[in-house]
Amino acid sequence: MPEALDKLISGLGRLPGVGKRSAERMAMAILRDPAGTGAELLATLQHAIQQLTPCRTCGNITLRSQDPCSLCADPRRDSTLLCVVEEPADILAMERSGAYRGRYHALMGRLSPMRGEGVRHLRVDSLIERVKREGIREVLLALNSDVESDATASYLRDVLASIDVKVTQLARGIPSGSGLAYSDATTLSRALANRQVW
Amino acid sequence: MPEALDKLISGLGRLPGVGKRSAERMAMAILRDPAGTGAELLATLQHAIQQLTPCRTCGNITLRSQDPCSLCADPRRDSTLLCVVEEPADILAMERSGAYRGRYHALMGRLSPMRGEGVRHLRVDSLIERVKREGIREVLLALNSDVESDATASYLRDVLASIDVKVTQLARGIPSGSGLAYSDATTLSRALANRQVW
Repeated sequence: MPEALDKLISGLGRLPGVGKRSAERMAMAILRDPAGTGAELLATLQHAIQQLTPCRTCGNITLRSQDPCSLCADPRRDSTLLCVVEEPADILAMERSGAYRGRYHALMGRLSPMRGEGVRHLRVDSLIERVKREGIREVLLALNSDVESDATASYLRDVLASIDVKVTQLARGIPSGSGLAYSDATTLSRALANRQVW
Repeated sequence: MPEALDKLISGLGRLPGVGKRSAERMAMAILRDPAGTGAELLATLQHAIQQLTPCRTCGNITLRSQDPCSLCADPRRDSTLLCVVEEPADILAMERSGAYRGRYHALMGRLSPMRGEGVRHLRVDSLIERVKREGIREVLLALNSDVESDATASYLRDVLASIDVKVTQLARGIPSGSGLAYSDATTLSRALANRQVW
């Protein structure tokens, strides 16, 4: 295999959720028509990289010409409520729910001893500074649900304990539209422990 | 959402096997670090597009400076056996099996009335020309297994019937490492019809 192809497959394979086989199919689809599909994707990627950047305040992807981003700048959003997520993509997911009207703060990762990523890799200092400076009353931890994310949430809870702010986290339970038979034991245990009066 | 982000998500989402949510996660992962991950992927993509092209003979992705590709040029491969696949990615899969030592011909698609793709979109003329000119004795149809691919195989069988060449296709049956309980009815029917003396 030519080295340039091998490198493209590796590069695509480093993106989240892309396995080796998917990366191969993507690379081949790009290169089977280099002047069409290939050139088009290249131009789109180049334009996006030139135009966009993470918002310096919250981490949301925004135009370089619009930093702080539209979510940080929107005066109708509740500035006393701050939602902490791992990645910019999580902000998109929260916004799609239409149920949240506060501000955001993306950590840009999580504690991951396996990948050698510790506190210094995360945007924790700026989180604490924002909580202290922006008059935030509630920090909502909206992290993923697994060992590393749970450890990250624990760490943040400890750090925030010294500040006068309420810390909450997203409810854990049965996902909407899902059947009991497909739920794993941990999900069911938590749904049971957190059962609500109807 | 900024237009440049929306366009990148759409562009990535047009690659095979990439859904809207995956495309979003990929785009965000690229743009959360535009000067690092982003610039790196951009350079890799640019390099690959500059260096690589489909082989003019078989369609396999190859260096522009090495066309015909290494598979077409390899004198140890059997030139009387031609394997017809849909996409360059399928050549990779066949080569990975290590069980095939003939030549290849990628159609660059399949008959797809739904997407308005007919015979003129496929590399059929060059296939017939190769079969006539290169002294090929057997054409192995290694297409996917679904309605459109089956229709494409039927069409090729009809076209090749007028030429003095043996036409074969990959066996259909239970995939290796899989259980009966997970096999669908069509797969089981074919495995039964094609059962072999042991």
